[in-house]
Amino acid sequence: MEATISYITLGVSDLKRAVEFYQKVLGLKTKGIIGEEFNDGAVAFFKVNTDLTLALWPRESLARQCGVPLGSPNSSGLLLAHNVGSTEKVDQVIASALKAGATLTKEAAEFPWGGYGGVFMDLDGHLWEVVFNPNSSSNT
Amino acid sequence: MEATISYITLGVSDLKRAVEFYQKVLGLKTKGIIGEEFNDGAVAFFKVNTDLTLALWPRESLARQCGVPLGSPNSSGLLLAHNVGSTEKVDQVIASALKAGATLTKEAAEFPWGGYGGVFMDLDGHLWEVVFNPNSSSNT
Repeated sequence: MEATISYITLGVSDLKRAVEFYQKVLGLKTKGIIGEEFNDGAVAFFKVNTDLTLALWPRESLARQCGVPLGSPNSSGLLLAHNVGSTEKVDQVIASALKAGATLTKEAAEFPWGGYGGVFMDLDGHLWEVVFNPNSSSNT
Repeated sequence: MEATISYITLGVSDLKRAVEFYQKVLGLKTKGIIGEEFNDGAVAFFKVNTDLTLALWPRESLARQCGVPLGSPNSSGLLLAHNVGSTEKVDQVIASALKAGATLTKEAAEFPWGGYGGVFMDLDGHLWEVVFNPNSSSNT
């Protein structure tokens, strides 16, 4: 199957801080901030799936380069799900996120369908659900 | 490589209309709206990559279930990139999006690095960059 979505770019207010957050909390690898020599070029990439890259880009750059007004962060438009391999790992990732400055918006609990998860808001208002799905074959 | 991000959930104001939009514009397949019998359960799923699902969920449900206030849509926080196989296909997808009610925020043009793309805003303010990357092996 070919990738329909190749990049998820999140607008962030402090690029350096956001990069550190995602390295620490999700344990993602990155070459760090690149492109600083170009106008609106500073960005950081994290390979998250085989065919998907998570990018962090300053909100100002994103708004300017995409032709939209720079608004205030709002959290009711997006939820990213991060699957992990156990309920303990859910608690660990959420604890790590909170320690790194995230806000807990939904305490981890069992889902009616048997999984376990909770939701945190990152430094820029983006919501992440950390989930253990006992029925998934792609648990790490 | 295991998937780090398994779901991208977009908050939408009119679920039925958003489902039609994504079927038409990105040509994505879905079983349609499911879960309407549950509180905040109505949702539609589109398999977009091998290990990634795009979900559409009413903004009210997303906010309530994730424990955040329901705010106004804002566009400077997220950009999703949709790769296609040719410059003509970029123009086609964007034309189809505009016809289905999207707003063009950045006219399609050549990038300094050789690709070609433009940006539209969907019915709920989510930004999509439609891109042809001549150097990519994953063009469809």
